[in-house]
Amino acid sequence: MKSILIIGAGLSAKVLINYLSEQAKKHNWNVSIAKRNVNTIDDIDLPKIQLDITDDKARYECIKKFDVIISMAPARYHNLVAKDCLTLGKHLFTASYITPEIKAMEQEVKEKKLLFFNECGLDPGIDHMSAMKIIHNIKNKGGEILEFESATGGLVAPEYDNNPWNYKFTWNPRNVVLAGRDSAKYLDDGNYKYIPYHRLFQWVKPINISGLGDFEVYPNRDSLQYRYIYGLDTVKTMLRGTIRRTGYCKAWNGFVQLGITDDSYEIENIDKMTWKELIFSFLPNIPGKSIEDNFCDYIGINRNSEEFHKFEWLEIFTDKKVGLQKGTPAQALQHLLEEKWKLEDTDKDLIVMQHKIVYSLQGKKHIVTSSLSYIGKDQINTAMAITVGLPLAIAVDLFMQGKLQKTGVLLPIEPDIYNPILEKLEEYGINFIEEEN
Amino acid sequence: MKSILIIGAGLSAKVLINYLSEQAKKHNWNVSIAKRNVNTIDDIDLPKIQLDITDDKARYECIKKFDVIISMAPARYHNLVAKDCLTLGKHLFTASYITPEIKAMEQEVKEKKLLFFNECGLDPGIDHMSAMKIIHNIKNKGGEILEFESATGGLVAPEYDNNPWNYKFTWNPRNVVLAGRDSAKYLDDGNYKYIPYHRLFQWVKPINISGLGDFEVYPNRDSLQYRYIYGLDTVKTMLRGTIRRTGYCKAWNGFVQLGITDDSYEIENIDKMTWKELIFSFLPNIPGKSIEDNFCDYIGINRNSEEFHKFEWLEIFTDKKVGLQKGTPAQALQHLLEEKWKLEDTDKDLIVMQHKIVYSLQGKKHIVTSSLSYIGKDQINTAMAITVGLPLAIAVDLFMQGKLQKTGVLLPIEPDIYNPILEKLEEYGINFIEEEN
Repeated sequence: MKSILIIGAGLSAKVLINYLSEQAKKHNWNVSIAKRNVNTIDDIDLPKIQLDITDDKARYECIKKFDVIISMAPARYHNLVAKDCLTLGKHLFTASYITPEIKAMEQEVKEKKLLFFNECGLDPGIDHMSAMKIIHNIKNKGGEILEFESATGGLVAPEYDNNPWNYKFTWNPRNVVLAGRDSAKYLDDGNYKYIPYHRLFQWVKPINISGLGDFEVYPNRDSLQYRYIYGLDTVKTMLRGTIRRTGYCKAWNGFVQLGITDDSYEIENIDKMTWKELIFSFLPNIPGKSIEDNFCDYIGINRNSEEFHKFEWLEIFTDKKVGLQKGTPAQALQHLLEEKWKLEDTDKDLIVMQHKIVYSLQGKKHIVTSSLSYIGKDQINTAMAITVGLPLAIAVDLFMQGKLQKTGVLLPIEPDIYNPILEKLEEYGINFIEEEN
Repeated sequence: MKSILIIGAGLSAKVLINYLSEQAKKHNWNVSIAKRNVNTIDDIDLPKIQLDITDDKARYECIKKFDVIISMAPARYHNLVAKDCLTLGKHLFTASYITPEIKAMEQEVKEKKLLFFNECGLDPGIDHMSAMKIIHNIKNKGGEILEFESATGGLVAPEYDNNPWNYKFTWNPRNVVLAGRDSAKYLDDGNYKYIPYHRLFQWVKPINISGLGDFEVYPNRDSLQYRYIYGLDTVKTMLRGTIRRTGYCKAWNGFVQLGITDDSYEIENIDKMTWKELIFSFLPNIPGKSIEDNFCDYIGINRNSEEFHKFEWLEIFTDKKVGLQKGTPAQALQHLLEEKWKLEDTDKDLIVMQHKIVYSLQGKKHIVTSSLSYIGKDQINTAMAITVGLPLAIAVDLFMQGKLQKTGVLLPIEPDIYNPILEKLEEYGINFIEEEN
């Protein structure tokens, strides 16, 4: 009997657990879950192991007992898990970006005939698979790819989209508050572009997704490396980005300009501060000027603008207490937004993704636009949890059934990997609409 | 015979070495110099020791042989030296900021009756001493200090100030290019102020130094902590800053806005790039728009402005080659500025410092302004080298003569320390002009 260990059981893990539980029954696999606090997953009918992932000995002994390890733990722990998997000769699956540390294990992973399979969630994951399918199609018919743009967003479904930011937290709030803090790098019409954090949210591009309307895209950290991964070494435009509703970025840029997304120092006396006072600590002292006018002038917006309305709605110019005992500016902002941007129990979330690929074939230019939109089912089966957890579960299932016979440190960019996963995803209604002109 | 080891012999060390050599002859001290490459200090008539400071064993064995250690090595190595001094029971002197690691040694330093004496150069150093003298004077006559502002700058002497930036490198160029990359924190009229890097060079205050004219000050990293160090717990304004000639900050802010002071990633293909191309990689693609207009619009300056003239003078809109095989944006910029802002052999440098202290005494408000200006002698005895190296040399001299009988991790903020040092500095023409109204 082959055995699987799932480490972690957070947001997207439940979808994966449910999928693999059913397959396990059919195929007589042993599936167990390791977690720091197993009391929180009483509802899951699988063997549970209490595990502190930072405990080197306990982690090693736990991994030792299984054949395939799925790390759904926070990404910063994957290297620890990978190290043990390599030593013990276990296969590893994650939905996260390949770290330099895991990449460095490649030779040894191959020698031991292991598979370390990564970037198989939503973004990274479905984005790679759906893009590579189009890229391979174009190449197969002799086309040359000139431009590649791809973007993904986790948003709130239109029916529940009822705040002026058109945004609610559907995933890790900390990642949203700190989004883009590294400089972005991409290729635009043959020119390198390097965008520092403080200008990032001004570099937005509008997109439209049929049936859902207008969105905007800001660039992700490093688009350049994907030229080589996708086999697009001579492409002229290469941009991966994040999707928000139109207007979000211009307003968020106000927080960036203020400096309140900084996570590197703690605010003195934050326990006694109101939001108005905290905001004022990022503004110049101008006697007689209202906090609202001071704020608008400093970040360069109009008091009658949509952006100002967004800020006002957050109550940041009021005597509302910050409500933290201690914290960085980013932590204070996150604390406020977790209240204001809360996804209610009855709300549903929305995943949107769009690739735009320009290629030339027999002297003629073509544009392919491929779009995905997917709305969550309920609080557990959110669109985010499904689109992150399901592709990885399918990949593990394929592997367990002997249909994924590869070794090495891989991501899903080959047809024999992405085709069966994309087909299975379609059965769940996760499918792309392609337009070409 | 007591013995002194000077580790490092860079820019400011020669002034210190000369001073201590003369004292050593008088008092029969043994002074030696340890350095990675002793060939570069052939002109110094003192025993020399070849030392790689990162070699733990060699460093330990070297320090073991002396009573007093002066670390003139780059600041990042002070912790290594301090660790050995603590283990071996040696006294330590540096001109650099007390690190958290050295601060943590305080208890043990005291128990072993050692002195770890720091922040005794120019800034930190002369700034602390001269400020504390005024602060203690005011407190002694019963005054209450309301506002404290202090700033220092290393510039080029007026006679040699002949470029549009009114700036030349008189110290480590890398520190100038990366200046201010952490957020600044200070207190302004009872309000905390937190300034992110990308806004820092817009938060300048004008100052005037009698006989030298107008300058501007941008805030240093963390002014808040000096409230406690200076005993100004209830002060309403607390700001430490850096002095530049008027107009420098507004232009430098252009580079910050562009993102070209980033040191966190390497530019692809930089070996083939011209300056015009490198600048364009930080600007939006706008067909038909000149690089100059694009640049001006993006960073918000006028093409006829003084700022634009400064940028143009640097040849950054030309086909001049960047001239690096590889490098970060900050390294590219430093490479250019090292050519353009070079202090010529016959140029002299200038140190300026100004404290402005507002206090109340018997219900009346007073303002004390205390200013230092000091011009270098020659290429070796620059104002920077003298004002950094001399205070530390004097402190070591006092200690060797038994006139500095303290233990612990200290900086020069007590009268029995700063008075003799300031008096000796006056003999060298390093003196403050005080005005009160």
